[in-house]
Amino acid sequence: MLKECKAGERFEGILLINEWKEVPFRQKPGSYITLTCQDRSGTIQGKIWNYEPQVLVWLNEQDVFYVKGMISEYRGTLDLTVETIRLVPKEEVDLTELLPSSPVDLEVLERRLDLLIKKIFQPELRVLLEQFFKHPEKGDTYRRAPAAIKIHQAYLRGLWEHSLRVAEIAEGIARLYPGIDYDLVVAGALLHDVGKIREYAYDRGIKFTTDGRLLGHIILGIELLTEEIASIPDFPNELRSKLLHILASHHGKYEWQSPKKPKLMEALVIHYADALDAELWQFEQAKENYPNDDWSPYIPNMERYFYLK
Amino acid sequence: MLKECKAGERFEGILLINEWKEVPFRQKPGSYITLTCQDRSGTIQGKIWNYEPQVLVWLNEQDVFYVKGMISEYRGTLDLTVETIRLVPKEEVDLTELLPSSPVDLEVLERRLDLLIKKIFQPELRVLLEQFFKHPEKGDTYRRAPAAIKIHQAYLRGLWEHSLRVAEIAEGIARLYPGIDYDLVVAGALLHDVGKIREYAYDRGIKFTTDGRLLGHIILGIELLTEEIASIPDFPNELRSKLLHILASHHGKYEWQSPKKPKLMEALVIHYADALDAELWQFEQAKENYPNDDWSPYIPNMERYFYLK
Amino acid sequence: MLKECKAGERFEGILLINEWKEVPFRQKPGSYITLTCQDRSGTIQGKIWNYEPQVLVWLNEQDVFYVKGMISEYRGTLDLTVETIRLVPKEEVDLTELLPSSPVDLEVLERRLDLLIKKIFQPELRVLLEQFFKHPEKGDTYRRAPAAIKIHQAYLRGLWEHSLRVAEIAEGIARLYPGIDYDLVVAGALLHDVGKIREYAYDRGIKFTTDGRLLGHIILGIELLTEEIASIPDFPNELRSKLLHILASHHGKYEWQSPKKPKLMEALVIHYADALDAELWQFEQAKENYPNDDWSPYIPNMERYFYLK
Amino acid sequence: MLKECKAGERFEGILLINEWKEVPFRQKPGSYITLTCQDRSGTIQGKIWNYEPQVLVWLNEQDVFYVKGMISEYRGTLDLTVETIRLVPKEEVDLTELLPSSPVDLEVLERRLDLLIKKIFQPELRVLLEQFFKHPEKGDTYRRAPAAIKIHQAYLRGLWEHSLRVAEIAEGIARLYPGIDYDLVVAGALLHDVGKIREYAYDRGIKFTTDGRLLGHIILGIELLTEEIASIPDFPNELRSKLLHILASHHGKYEWQSPKKPKLMEALVIHYADALDAELWQFEQAKENYPNDDWSPYIPNMERYFYLK
Amino acid sequence: MLKECKAGERFEGILLINEWKEVPFRQKPGSYITLTCQDRSGTIQGKIWNYEPQVLVWLNEQDVFYVKGMISEYRGTLDLTVETIRLVPKEEVDLTELLPSSPVDLEVLERRLDLLIKKIFQPELRVLLEQFFKHPEKGDTYRRAPAAIKIHQAYLRGLWEHSLRVAEIAEGIARLYPGIDYDLVVAGALLHDVGKIREYAYDRGIKFTTDGRLLGHIILGIELLTEEIASIPDFPNELRSKLLHILASHHGKYEWQSPKKPKLMEALVIHYADALDAELWQFEQAKENYPNDDWSPYIPNMERYFYLK
Amino acid sequence: MLKECKAGERFEGILLINEWKEVPFRQKPGSYITLTCQDRSGTIQGKIWNYEPQVLVWLNEQDVFYVKGMISEYRGTLDLTVETIRLVPKEEVDLTELLPSSPVDLEVLERRLDLLIKKIFQPELRVLLEQFFKHPEKGDTYRRAPAAIKIHQAYLRGLWEHSLRVAEIAEGIARLYPGIDYDLVVAGALLHDVGKIREYAYDRGIKFTTDGRLLGHIILGIELLTEEIASIPDFPNELRSKLLHILASHHGKYEWQSPKKPKLMEALVIHYADALDAELWQFEQAKENYPNDDWSPYIPNMERYFYLK
Repeated sequence: MLKECKAGERFEGILLINEWKEVPFRQKPGSYITLTCQDRSGTIQGKIWNYEPQVLVWLNEQDVFYVKGMISEYRGTLDLTVETIRLVPKEEVDLTELLPSSPVDLEVLERRLDLLIKKIFQPELRVLLEQFFKHPEKGDTYRRAPAAIKIHQAYLRGLWEHSLRVAEIAEGIARLYPGIDYDLVVAGALLHDVGKIREYAYDRGIKFTTDGRLLGHIILGIELLTEEIASIPDFPNELRSKLLHILASHHGKYEWQSPKKPKLMEALVIHYADALDAELWQFEQAKENYPNDDWSPYIPNMERYFYLK
Repeated sequence: MLKECKAGERFEGILLINEWKEVPFRQKPGSYITLTCQDRSGTIQGKIWNYEPQVLVWLNEQDVFYVKGMISEYRGTLDLTVETIRLVPKEEVDLTELLPSSPVDLEVLERRLDLLIKKIFQPELRVLLEQFFKHPEKGDTYRRAPAAIKIHQAYLRGLWEHSLRVAEIAEGIARLYPGIDYDLVVAGALLHDVGKIREYAYDRGIKFTTDGRLLGHIILGIELLTEEIASIPDFPNELRSKLLHILASHHGKYEWQSPKKPKLMEALVIHYADALDAELWQFEQAKENYPNDDWSPYIPNMERYFYLK
Repeated sequence: MLKECKAGERFEGILLINEWKEVPFRQKPGSYITLTCQDRSGTIQGKIWNYEPQVLVWLNEQDVFYVKGMISEYRGTLDLTVETIRLVPKEEVDLTELLPSSPVDLEVLERRLDLLIKKIFQPELRVLLEQFFKHPEKGDTYRRAPAAIKIHQAYLRGLWEHSLRVAEIAEGIARLYPGIDYDLVVAGALLHDVGKIREYAYDRGIKFTTDGRLLGHIILGIELLTEEIASIPDFPNELRSKLLHILASHHGKYEWQSPKKPKLMEALVIHYADALDAELWQFEQAKENYPNDDWSPYIPNMERYFYLK
Repeated sequence: MLKECKAGERFEGILLINEWKEVPFRQKPGSYITLTCQDRSGTIQGKIWNYEPQVLVWLNEQDVFYVKGMISEYRGTLDLTVETIRLVPKEEVDLTELLPSSPVDLEVLERRLDLLIKKIFQPELRVLLEQFFKHPEKGDTYRRAPAAIKIHQAYLRGLWEHSLRVAEIAEGIARLYPGIDYDLVVAGALLHDVGKIREYAYDRGIKFTTDGRLLGHIILGIELLTEEIASIPDFPNELRSKLLHILASHHGKYEWQSPKKPKLMEALVIHYADALDAELWQFEQAKENYPNDDWSPYIPNMERYFYLK
Repeated sequence: MLKECKAGERFEGILLINEWKEVPFRQKPGSYITLTCQDRSGTIQGKIWNYEPQVLVWLNEQDVFYVKGMISEYRGTLDLTVETIRLVPKEEVDLTELLPSSPVDLEVLERRLDLLIKKIFQPELRVLLEQFFKHPEKGDTYRRAPAAIKIHQAYLRGLWEHSLRVAEIAEGIARLYPGIDYDLVVAGALLHDVGKIREYAYDRGIKFTTDGRLLGHIILGIELLTEEIASIPDFPNELRSKLLHILASHHGKYEWQSPKKPKLMEALVIHYADALDAELWQFEQAKENYPNDDWSPYIPNMERYFYLK
Repeated sequence: MLKECKAGERFEGILLINEWKEVPFRQKPGSYITLTCQDRSGTIQGKIWNYEPQVLVWLNEQDVFYVKGMISEYRGTLDLTVETIRLVPKEEVDLTELLPSSPVDLEVLERRLDLLIKKIFQPELRVLLEQFFKHPEKGDTYRRAPAAIKIHQAYLRGLWEHSLRVAEIAEGIARLYPGIDYDLVVAGALLHDVGKIREYAYDRGIKFTTDGRLLGHIILGIELLTEEIASIPDFPNELRSKLLHILASHHGKYEWQSPKKPKLMEALVIHYADALDAELWQFEQAKENYPNDDWSPYIPNMERYFYLK
């Protein structure tokens, strides 16, 4: 793990290359490559001083490589001089070694999910959730997926962590308003972002898929749920429309890419809980990153400074 | 037909009731009912002077009734005093007798559709169009549906007429830009609004369906196309994504309920042709409604006056 | 109470006049007055057929009058023919007899308030809340005030009911995020709208005060809290700034009249909870008003129809 | 031509300097100049290592110079070491040697223009077009002008190429809508951007004129057309107003600097065709620039990625 | 004059008919006409009980008629029963008898104008103003024109009154900022709205002209100034561009139909002074209309209530 | 003073450090510090080649230091090699030596202030102004404060200079509109930005205070005025509300952080005068910075180029 490296040691292992560029030498002809490498424990800047031209062809950003080199220190910052680098075949890539993961423990997430599903009475909704979360591929992908590429919970298991918090906020609110259907709001919260498992590809780094860009996670989620529901006998038609509406409206506004506004109490609550968790996450992150400061730097995405005291 | 009625004659026939209300008498206790009745030839105001209270329960707006009464004249405007009124059973309703239809002849529409489809080479797109338009129910519903509830082509066969014009505009543009895929742009234009056949119910007048309000014609159209494509063997995956993207993006902007912006030349052309036809239709309509005026009244939907000379 | 009146009976009592206008007779010279009267149990239309001109001077809208007259029926709707009407002196007005009140029981509200305050540890915040809620005049006005003039909880005790729900939502969320200060978020939620007790006058009906229109409840609330805090020894300066910031930012956006955006987790949560409760209330209201309908009428304030099933 | 240069050769010729700056040496006092030079065949980076201070005064960006120097290579990119540089007198500048031109052949453009004008029946419109396009100076400037400084068709003859495409789109649409006046829509399309010949100066590179910045091409075009029309006897007054309205409204929205919205079918069609061609041009450009990519880079002007497959 | 009429008297004179409509009788077949009549002293409601059908053809709104009838009173409001009505030939119409005029005295306006022009040194600007204001037709039309059809100074001489105030505000500001050119700012202020004399027709009531709707007063003003300036020998080119820019930019924002933003100090000052006078006028108007109220009614155009104390 | 320094001389004095960063050496391990230093006469770039690590801890941006070093020249630009640097104790800091000040003379500002206050008749307003401006601390802070951190009059005494100009513009306008209360508009103009003395801290450089960020100068100004007014016996209640309203509404729009729109003529005038002075100041600045140019560079804050001729 990068975190354990020390200056003067050699490094050998599998790394994710986030971005790289060729830099011309200032004082002589020729150039070198700088790259940002990461594994789940952290990030290091690397340099390749000598390389053959075809490296420029196969060295993709957001891709995974076997790397060998030397660690040196430079005013307290470590630096990796790469001596060997080659592509790692797809089947050897283990993203959980390369990307950070939700700070919440896997078992804790699983237990919280269980707890939420167990309280659901409506039989078809319960079947839907159990079938989906136990599905070897879909359930697994959902548990691994990040919540976003940037902004909030952009790490492995981020989708899961985020969806649980949305569901838990929604649950708390449902208890205060008798008009809210507990089963629907919790199931909707857990599934509101399910289309992200087709919007992002993250077998080698995190990228948008072509379908992700052409259709987006709202439509992809509706397609996915439509398939799931089709396999459940007698799933009530109206319940299906409500669930799909929750997905369609969870961004809350047309300008935020929701083709419908929330027209159900449950859809409204999920929209609010979704937005609130994404924003609170940024506060938490700022508090973690600037533990000694009164004020965060300017957060462009929120168009403000946060007060951290 | 209402158009042929004269003052002093009796009327007997099936009419669509658009709206009605109970009006209290000014000078004495009690009230009467005024209603707007229509068949495909026109509209007449009606009055019911005597009625039993339960009429108020079964007299729905946007519904179809058998009506018997007397025509009278009042300053050049005809008026129908209703003596008998009762609900028409669903199977006896023939909407084409009750609602106006596209001014374009049915045969002309059919011929223009044929012409457009025949020029399509891409085999799966051609199969998709033929299968859809020949489908006894879907093809028929599409041909009957209005293009909108208000604003443009809000009459029977309006969807068909509008889609043909969008396709014909797109065809003309495709000829000027070699980068545009003729087959895709024409197929996309014909199908861009297909979800409207599930967004509106028009067995008895024109109304939004619950799915229409919860999901909208973009998502309903994508569901419908997904089903259609699933039944065509070897439909290329990428072609499917492009078609669905055309539906998803045809409103052009997030604020207009498109969850994606046009990212293909074909999607862009369809978005423009769609908006342009809807706006030109309003000019045509204004010219027809105010044949002797220089200026139309203010058109709220377009936020301007039209110059009609 | 108006609710118990029957046609043919006489009425005598104190009523709130919401609005009135003079209506010219259609068939003869002269005019009559129509007025909308209400007490807490309901509303009735009234008419004054004979009156002296100076009535037009002292008959204010949103004011309270002693009224005597005759109830008659007109197609199931009751109607009050006013024979005597005169202004009620200020000290005899009891608004709780005239305006509807929160459907939630007074004791329940009091108990929920107690519960929330009891859990607060931070000593100065606790003193602040106790001092304010026990203050004979301020505490009482707060408990009586409506939450709004229109839109949501626009009835007596509406401010209290709304603030409790905001506090309870916030409390639930605080339990999920360790970074949120429970004491601050609950105190802030209870006080976020406190300026409304100076923004509205409701000794005789509900009206904006001049200060309400010139300054608004955010600034009036800040003034009020500033005074309260000044009387508490050693109230920490930073806590004071945070509390005032919560008031200043609780509308969440500049366009919604908040001069600051939420820069504290607690301020963010209160903003969300405030907006969410105001919107959920409208769903609840629609469900109550249209118990048998699938869809509400169009809700202009929310720019959508609600699905009520 | 720059395109034919090779490393190790000497260069001598006339170049357009787009931008330049003085760069301090890192390791020693003093500085050098880097500049971007172009002729119509391409672009090269240049450096001036030794120069007298007054160079800084007469070395304008977007100006034309005689340049002598040495070509060298540096990792596959050519580099020009400038030895001699001096201003070229205005009369020796030939912009067509320095700026790229429309990829469409001059003869093709001329033929398409002819074809469009020939079909116009309305005599005054035809005179107007013939007089303008045959005018030795105006007609010529129009044919040379770029369509824009950035974004679309920002090369010589771009205005002409763009206007022809707008006219051809409009022509195709006019054929589908009997209400559209063919003569007016084609004439309007050819002239909609005519003010650009006074908005940009492009005798030495492309720049905004002072009038271009103070008044813009809509007002300058209206002034220009007003002059042209004044010289045509009996030009119908109403036709003149319509033509000027087409110019005034062709951006379609106030926010896009049109002081009027399109109020004629012809003005509406030209607005749509104008916007559509500008956007399709960007797709074409992206396809040309990234022939092997599925997706374009982010296009800030269109706020999206293009799908290029 | 209408103001002097009393109930029971006969009326005979020339009136402007603002609007009229045919109203069906409630209790019997047939209908009558109600119309709003005005002269410069006030407004009266009229009724025509008997009329021949062709009245409906020639009775235009915003037109001028000779009217004979009977005044009656109805709860303090006067009412005119029209017995004879016929069109007044154009040459007999004197608008100053029919429309209200600026409350400011004609001589006062003339004196203030003189004063402003006399202080202008720049010779061509002075010639321009003198030539324009002394022009028998243009100068006269300017002095008579209203400043707007609605909102502010919508009465005869309103344009003049408004322009003077804008010029006087600008003059005061120019004295504080040495960078502002006094001559230009005053001349620009006096002429900023000059296009309104072609945007409105007010020979018979106030209406938009066709050119007014197609081009607007900014473009029409620029055309007018262009003509004026063309007749002044050696008018400096740059001064002309600045003046035209002031017209083009005086609405200040694209959304308000200015195709350019103010890029000169003088243009900026005129934009601000123009907007400020239009808004202050509405305050003055409200104070005049509600002399005893603390608060004005809601002013939709300003989206607020005014405090009038 | 920095302005008087010459290359080759030594420098010793107190400087404000605006920003600094550590820069790694390109050719060897280690790094150096670059910093921007200023006093009221100008700005110089500095470098520290050798330093102990703890410098990085106490070297704050926007703070004040005693600096000793050597001036050298590098292509006409001076450069300061810092040899000694240490923090200056708070009581020795004299900001007027470190920051630029308003170009207007202190005596002139004082005289203009006097003049404005002397004309005020309303006794309580006069007392308020005199008490505030003579207050040893508040009056002094007001006179020293900048008008902004960026954009306009961001220098010492900027608040004072700006407020005077706003008051003088307002005074001129008040003379033209009899409905405007001279005393209120001048007092309001002088105090509209008074909250800035608590929004910014400028004992050591200019920074936002925590209260400035949490509450903003509108609320802080209202708090400050509330305190001031409380100490004046019999200050009329309504006058107080009007003054506070002027502060609350002086940004004119919700989007610009005013929680209320101007509802008084005086508030409207102050809003306009405030915005106009801030924009004219930018024109003046551009004319000063680019005395020989026709056009300023693009001014992002004003979204335009200025024409400077």
